[in-house]
Amino acid sequence: MKVVLIGAGNLATNLGKALFRAGHEIVQVYSRTEESACALAEVLKCAYTTDLAAVPTSADVFIFALADDAVERIACLLRKGREEQLFVHTAGSLHLDVLPTARRGVFYPMQSFSKDKEVDFSIIPCFVESFLKKDLELLLALARTVSDTVYELSSNDRKYLHLAAVFCNNFANHCFALGAHLLKEHGNLPFSVMLPLIDETASKLHVMSPHEAQTGPAKRRDKRVLEKHRMLLATKPEMGKIYELFSDSIYYDQLRLKEDTCGIF
Amino acid sequence: MKVVLIGAGNLATNLGKALFRAGHEIVQVYSRTEESACALAEVLKCAYTTDLAAVPTSADVFIFALADDAVERIACLLRKGREEQLFVHTAGSLHLDVLPTARRGVFYPMQSFSKDKEVDFSIIPCFVESFLKKDLELLLALARTVSDTVYELSSNDRKYLHLAAVFCNNFANHCFALGAHLLKEHGNLPFSVMLPLIDETASKLHVMSPHEAQTGPAKRRDKRVLEKHRMLLATKPEMGKIYELFSDSIYYDQLRLKEDTCGIF
Repeated sequence: MKVVLIGAGNLATNLGKALFRAGHEIVQVYSRTEESACALAEVLKCAYTTDLAAVPTSADVFIFALADDAVERIACLLRKGREEQLFVHTAGSLHLDVLPTARRGVFYPMQSFSKDKEVDFSIIPCFVESFLKKDLELLLALARTVSDTVYELSSNDRKYLHLAAVFCNNFANHCFALGAHLLKEHGNLPFSVMLPLIDETASKLHVMSPHEAQTGPAKRRDKRVLEKHRMLLATKPEMGKIYELFSDSIYYDQLRLKEDTCGIF
Repeated sequence: MKVVLIGAGNLATNLGKALFRAGHEIVQVYSRTEESACALAEVLKCAYTTDLAAVPTSADVFIFALADDAVERIACLLRKGREEQLFVHTAGSLHLDVLPTARRGVFYPMQSFSKDKEVDFSIIPCFVESFLKKDLELLLALARTVSDTVYELSSNDRKYLHLAAVFCNNFANHCFALGAHLLKEHGNLPFSVMLPLIDETASKLHVMSPHEAQTGPAKRRDKRVLEKHRMLLATKPEMGKIYELFSDSIYYDQLRLKEDTCGIF
């Protein structure tokens, strides 16, 4: 397919490369910043522009891989002369309807992208949605050329998926940051000592649910250890609050889990 | 070395196997439960007992791999007639001095063990400590036969290491459980869709610190997304509280990170 790529950030870079490798023609890359546009265009062997007026008026699909708060504005600016074109955004947290064309859709690859760390796109779950039924087939087909795991998902359910991803990625990562902080302050151990434990925590989830994988003093309601930990955190009220909230939440989660296998809250 | 193993749970099983493979002689396994004692003894090709009175009176090391709250009690019961023996426990959260012998030590392999899921012991960081200097050499040597990463660490610093492990393992895992819950309720997606994101979150830490790896709406202080997420959690006050606390903590952590590279709180 002929693809116009609006954006040249982390997601645009990773998605652009995957589409290019799958044999699609990237017609042009647009970015506000010449440097980013040029760098990505070189990799994708295509034209680039920093001028919205120079974006082509037709293609099989226009993919908006921009910061969330820029998608609606840029799509509206591009609408004129492209009313019949298929506009697609890639944002987990944005509704389909932020796009101004009748032919509109979503192509959300759920992964945390960095420009420098290349990821294997084929294992990234992609969630697609469209306003018109005929475009759904096109988007499903496009997504399947780059990923082995493609789901149709409504904007409403995608909101929760995105929120779940915040818990599984950002919040879990913050737990690691809090652990790193403790290590730095006491014993001066390198954070690398935590990696086998963290890798195992992630790896366990391939064979059991997170509820089943849970261990530790909070699950066991081990009052002696919980009290010790509270004392260690007495001078760190923010971490102390997180400790209390999580220890309670883990304990009640396990209680509920025993009652019904449906899980928590 | 000749090792007496007191305990036959997850840790005892994994440590016992690693010691056995490294060529040490497990003299005997003790467990309250005949079934566990027998099962592990069979693997370690050694004797077993459920009777403390039948435990040998000498060995190079007695390793107490028991539930934290049983270590002191069982060690005291075994002390008589073994006053000159080296007693070692394996608990991250227990002080060296819970053991009643002069020759006492700690051998803490930091990993979350399951009986059925075998782990590669050589990559597990082990933290050792002893009351007498001469026993430290023995414990370092023993630990190095099963692990490539061995540190000497005091009881005081080990408390913080254990707390850090709670954040990195139990609390991160609970973030996954909360994500799983959201997925189950909305869109009925399998939890497996989260695995590439979770694997990537863990894998990033091999090349950058958790502070640097952080992404998402809380880091960017993206008020539009934060407000949306708050609304999605309006009917789930416990998750809502966790969301607020983490979003604030991530944001302030990033602010502090800019000020000094030392990190948070």
